[in-house]
Amino acid sequence: MHQDKHDIESEGLNRKLERNQSELLEKDMALRVPLLQGRSATSSQTAIIGANVCTIESLDYEVAENDVFKEDWRARNKVQVFQYIALKWILVLLIGLATGLVGFFNNLAVENLAGFKLLFTSHLMQKESYYQAFIVFAGCNLILATASAAICAYIAPAAAGSGIPEVKAYLNGVDAYSILAPSTLFVKIIGSIGGVSAGFVLGKEGPMVHTGACIASLLGQGGSRKYHLTWTWLRYFKNDRDRRDLITCGAAAGVAAAFRAPLGGVLFALEEAASWWRSALLWRTFFTTAVTAVVLRAFIGYCRSGKCGLFGEGGLIMFDVSSAITGYSAKDVIVVIVLGIIGGIFGSLYNHLLDKILCKYSVINERGPQFKILLTMAISLLTSCCSYGFPWLGKCTPCPLGLKKDECPTKGRSGNFKRFQCPPGHYNDIASLFLNTNDDAIRNLFSAGTQNEFYMSTLFLFFLCVYCLGLITYGIAVPSGLFIPVILAGSIYGRIVGTLFAPVSDLDAGLFSLLGAASFLGGTMRMTVSVCVILLELTNDLLMLPLVMLVLLISKTVADCFNKGIYDQIVKMKGLPYMDAHPEPYLRNLAAKDVVSAELVSFAGIEKVGNIVHALRTTGHNGFPVVDEPPLANATELCGLVLRSHLLVLLKGKRFSRQRVETGKDFLRRFGAQDFAKAGSGKGLKLEDLDINNEEMEMFVDLHPITNKSPYTVVETMSLAKAAMLFREMALRHLLVVPKSNGMSPVVGILTRHDFMPEHILRLFPHVNPHKTITGPLELRVTRVQSNDYQGFKSQD
Amino acid sequence: MHQDKHDIESEGLNRKLERNQSELLEKDMALRVPLLQGRSATSSQTAIIGANVCTIESLDYEVAENDVFKEDWRARNKVQVFQYIALKWILVLLIGLATGLVGFFNNLAVENLAGFKLLFTSHLMQKESYYQAFIVFAGCNLILATASAAICAYIAPAAAGSGIPEVKAYLNGVDAYSILAPSTLFVKIIGSIGGVSAGFVLGKEGPMVHTGACIASLLGQGGSRKYHLTWTWLRYFKNDRDRRDLITCGAAAGVAAAFRAPLGGVLFALEEAASWWRSALLWRTFFTTAVTAVVLRAFIGYCRSGKCGLFGEGGLIMFDVSSAITGYSAKDVIVVIVLGIIGGIFGSLYNHLLDKILCKYSVINERGPQFKILLTMAISLLTSCCSYGFPWLGKCTPCPLGLKKDECPTKGRSGNFKRFQCPPGHYNDIASLFLNTNDDAIRNLFSAGTQNEFYMSTLFLFFLCVYCLGLITYGIAVPSGLFIPVILAGSIYGRIVGTLFAPVSDLDAGLFSLLGAASFLGGTMRMTVSVCVILLELTNDLLMLPLVMLVLLISKTVADCFNKGIYDQIVKMKGLPYMDAHPEPYLRNLAAKDVVSAELVSFAGIEKVGNIVHALRTTGHNGFPVVDEPPLANATELCGLVLRSHLLVLLKGKRFSRQRVETGKDFLRRFGAQDFAKAGSGKGLKLEDLDINNEEMEMFVDLHPITNKSPYTVVETMSLAKAAMLFREMALRHLLVVPKSNGMSPVVGILTRHDFMPEHILRLFPHVNPHKTITGPLELRVTRVQSNDYQGFKSQD
Repeated sequence: MHQDKHDIESEGLNRKLERNQSELLEKDMALRVPLLQGRSATSSQTAIIGANVCTIESLDYEVAENDVFKEDWRARNKVQVFQYIALKWILVLLIGLATGLVGFFNNLAVENLAGFKLLFTSHLMQKESYYQAFIVFAGCNLILATASAAICAYIAPAAAGSGIPEVKAYLNGVDAYSILAPSTLFVKIIGSIGGVSAGFVLGKEGPMVHTGACIASLLGQGGSRKYHLTWTWLRYFKNDRDRRDLITCGAAAGVAAAFRAPLGGVLFALEEAASWWRSALLWRTFFTTAVTAVVLRAFIGYCRSGKCGLFGEGGLIMFDVSSAITGYSAKDVIVVIVLGIIGGIFGSLYNHLLDKILCKYSVINERGPQFKILLTMAISLLTSCCSYGFPWLGKCTPCPLGLKKDECPTKGRSGNFKRFQCPPGHYNDIASLFLNTNDDAIRNLFSAGTQNEFYMSTLFLFFLCVYCLGLITYGIAVPSGLFIPVILAGSIYGRIVGTLFAPVSDLDAGLFSLLGAASFLGGTMRMTVSVCVILLELTNDLLMLPLVMLVLLISKTVADCFNKGIYDQIVKMKGLPYMDAHPEPYLRNLAAKDVVSAELVSFAGIEKVGNIVHALRTTGHNGFPVVDEPPLANATELCGLVLRSHLLVLLKGKRFSRQRVETGKDFLRRFGAQDFAKAGSGKGLKLEDLDINNEEMEMFVDLHPITNKSPYTVVETMSLAKAAMLFREMALRHLLVVPKSNGMSPVVGILTRHDFMPEHILRLFPHVNPHKTITGPLELRVTRVQSNDYQGFKSQD
Repeated sequence: MHQDKHDIESEGLNRKLERNQSELLEKDMALRVPLLQGRSATSSQTAIIGANVCTIESLDYEVAENDVFKEDWRARNKVQVFQYIALKWILVLLIGLATGLVGFFNNLAVENLAGFKLLFTSHLMQKESYYQAFIVFAGCNLILATASAAICAYIAPAAAGSGIPEVKAYLNGVDAYSILAPSTLFVKIIGSIGGVSAGFVLGKEGPMVHTGACIASLLGQGGSRKYHLTWTWLRYFKNDRDRRDLITCGAAAGVAAAFRAPLGGVLFALEEAASWWRSALLWRTFFTTAVTAVVLRAFIGYCRSGKCGLFGEGGLIMFDVSSAITGYSAKDVIVVIVLGIIGGIFGSLYNHLLDKILCKYSVINERGPQFKILLTMAISLLTSCCSYGFPWLGKCTPCPLGLKKDECPTKGRSGNFKRFQCPPGHYNDIASLFLNTNDDAIRNLFSAGTQNEFYMSTLFLFFLCVYCLGLITYGIAVPSGLFIPVILAGSIYGRIVGTLFAPVSDLDAGLFSLLGAASFLGGTMRMTVSVCVILLELTNDLLMLPLVMLVLLISKTVADCFNKGIYDQIVKMKGLPYMDAHPEPYLRNLAAKDVVSAELVSFAGIEKVGNIVHALRTTGHNGFPVVDEPPLANATELCGLVLRSHLLVLLKGKRFSRQRVETGKDFLRRFGAQDFAKAGSGKGLKLEDLDINNEEMEMFVDLHPITNKSPYTVVETMSLAKAAMLFREMALRHLLVVPKSNGMSPVVGILTRHDFMPEHILRLFPHVNPHKTITGPLELRVTRVQSNDYQGFKSQD
């Protein structure tokens, strides 16, 4: 199913990519990895959304154990260690606080914007000014949508979409350009408010996760140097490793803020977001989400007194289907299994269609910001027409007996029974779903004891609309989450199943909605435990746990037969070199030395400045092995690995000498760990910043103090599968390949993330069939294509 | 606090150890690692509980990528792959089912045994036959306790205690002898029923976790060969890697069965039990616990109609404090913080005292089974005296107004108001707590709206009793969990705080009990997320989540200042070589080559049989590097690593030749992967099973097909901290150390789990201060002690 080709789009993309590529080369920006170049030529699935993918850099999660690091680490006294730990907790507290605040602000703004829009529309409706009502409704939507799209397209294209795939990739070690920049944060917050208020079928959950991650990244960087907001006392956190931890906490806090589900946030971070996990992190994430939950609770308590405009009970989604469950029989379980299977199919179909639609959209989006805005406007108008148009098809139904006066038709904004054009005492069931915020529509569907509220035709119509609108909305240039569209479509699907099987099953229609939402979430996102906990926290009823679990298990299993989870799919489509936890089976047939294609550039322990500058200028490598040779060592021996960023700092410091001598302790007096601390993405030293004259080029510099003397290594005969596992588990950026026998150079190559990507390997070994585990007898080695053309683009990451 | 010495005990232990050691050597059992020998001589903390620690073996979690494996893996067609996946799911299903069944059976038995005992006692009480009542009560307890202790001491000493530390160590890669054997499983189930019914202050939760793990191990081994119950079609799972996954699921199912907390089970497995985690495992664990929960639910539904004797509502603990919370103010939060701090202190004190008591007990327990039984009987009598004696101190209180007739004094077994010796219409509050099962006592304490039920003096008395009895009960030779004593002590502590602060705080006393239990759990076990989820699932109220979180955070933080978590402490005390996720800081100052102490024994690719047999006989090594030399290779080169167990199979097969020739494809026709499959612990081939004559000794055997050609390696200069991280993260058993320069042998040593243990390192480098991060200037290398005496015991694992 997911193997279909769409060559027309990808050809267009390739041309685009090549242009981007050459532009990069002209600007001498080739330092960054032009990964996509190789990729998209082979993979028809590759597409670009937005303009944020050309500069992808790997992150240094491994500790570079060089002398500078060791000296700094040794010199830390107990006070500093305490300072570090305390600071980390304070940062985490701040992340939780800030994310909770943003989550509250987001909800406050959305509830008020969307609320006033809907109230004004219904006010006009009651005066029977139907055309004016439509103009107000559609006009508000259009303005909000255009504004969101405009800031998104012009200020921070990286803010479009969910953001979860990018955060996931970051936590895997891939830093896409400006994905966590302050401008992205700003646009994400404002754009998300605009997008949700504009009545699109999209959610604020994905953007909240991205927002949380941005806040964490910002706090972890010691502020933004660009906006003169640096906090120098945060220098301990100027490394990718600590930043990763903070961003994991931020992502968890985002989920906690979006759903008011602190435990769900922790589990989401664990199951979906993070690639590496430690017990200490569980603990810290838990703290962050707890803080977020407390902040939200405090604000909601404050708002309960009516001080927050239209923000009230309906604010943060907290559905209530409690006490709807009394017990279930075998018949009910069979119905639930059927629901799970069909839900899984719909879910995977959703992924498949979204993939196709995003490919089509990328062609439009890449033409420029104005096209992005036009596309958004078109979708906005379509959504408005659906929301306002379809209720006219609805019949006016008399209010059910036994309700209070205010309940039907609904006074105020939210509620199950919208009057629309109906006479008093009647309600329009289509309007109750369509002319509402997504949160309120879901609440209506989840509500218990409302079996007969909606006509079957209404449910089918709404399902079709939401399913399709959700698909065509995600790709527009607005921050847009996938949770709400999927939950909405799923809950209506669940209601349909519940209504169809009402003669057989005793379960409540609201409960069926919940199970339908679970089945769709399982089918698209493929998360299990976290979705389960989020749903439990949303509905506050643990007794339905077994049924929710069952549905999730079935729908995920069914959907896994067809394609990958939606976030994995988007990560792949964006061309982010994500390392899977499980290496592809065919990697077992290859050895580490087979894929090391680039020419190895290594330095001597004490190297001529000119050689270093030349290597930095002519290669895109970010890591270089350091090899000591006699007379400095007894034999040719591996000293370690030196990073480009460290070399640049060293060259900038100009501690050169005329002879090949070690600088020794003098070095550690001149340079401290903070000099080599990693700046935020795109803020490090560049080769152009150096100013080295010809005389200096002939001098020598001692690389030993900045050489990581403990690089991870594999023997050249190591199977690539196991090397990939090592690379992934230890969160590496460079993996040195050493020879299996003596009498050779002590390093034969470097493996980077790029070398494990299927596109790279299948280019070198076109005869490997990635979809087949059986690859013939042991002796038959796959033949390797020697493509010089390709090797020109190869980079050591 | 935890640095105190108790030399007397440890000296006794050392003597004992030495005797065990020499016995082992006499039996030519030196194949297993005599790890404890070195350990306990240096560490005063080391103690032995039971007799199950002398044979500790590491587990092979790494895939040995040799030709046999690769051939088998290549030959697997789609049907077999599907079979494997389906089987794994079926196994997981069976584990869930079986654990659920055992959990139900356990509860059924306990409720009936303890119930009849208590009913009969109270029946005699009402006839004012007080002495007879005591004799019946204490007699029943004594019989149950003695029976449990007897089967535990004579059949399976490994079944004593909680079992969680051992499961934790197993999942870390340490296989203590017979810890997961069928006899252990049997004794664990029966002994736990006896122990809990006997009225001890202990729980069934830890034993349930161990039971789940045993069931998983049993199913994963393809049954037990000893009892002729092997399932040959389970051969795919005959490896430690798959077994580890199953055992993780089993542990999770155990928690799920014990607490009826499926999510709590998953999180427990993740946070406390497992050392390695993958997303797929989350998913599988989740499935197992869901099955367990459904099974339990079904049985409880069946029993609700009264078909299960005394097993009824009170069966599986499911406390109900719902709707006890309405809202809380800043004052409440301050009280809760105080509660958390003191709870953390009490928790860490509990760990400290338990450590001391276990050391004392080990001296008694090691004298023989009869001493174990006597100790158990003594504690049983003491417990009976407390339970029956203290209620006589209680005053008779008139029943509170507004209760139904049957509620006070309690008719039947469980209930808040026990009559004891009081006149009708009155209750004895001490008896309501003391003369009850632990589950019912906790339920009484957690119950809402019972502020004035218990006198302050009762609470203090009960707290003191439970705290002390819990401490002295754990070490006896009966399966005993720690959760219930800690929850019980914590909940009564919470009630005390709640009563003391009643003028200040509006929170319910039952809620304070819950928070107190949380604080004690945080203070002893140091789990956060899992305890939180378990408590939520027990009480079925998500609204108290922020308060529970807060208490857990505080108590864990406070307790972490004093000592380690209780399970870590017991693991350490049992001498299990557990690898921590974070290497000790001083390891950064050492290099891999510094700790490789044993003489390296390596084989040629085609080796003489006699040499292999000699090496197997004279060393305890479980892994040997294979080095190819000219003319078989171009240069001396590393071929890989061969395992002792594989060598034994190869020698047993007797495919020897007179010349140095490769066996090639012929080999793979003779041997299949199932021949080299790992048998259950203690069931593999032994050196004594071989029968090789002198002529065969002079022949050659080709080791290439069974050599793992992709062993993980580190360069000799690699810092030990990073090597430890690699070892831990990749779940290794052997880590080859390769030279940094050419011109040397391609392997310089092998690192095993043992080499990373602090005891080993501190013995080699006595000047390293493990409690100090600052270790002087860079140049000052720590001096190494060359102890030949010690090297004699050194093993390559």
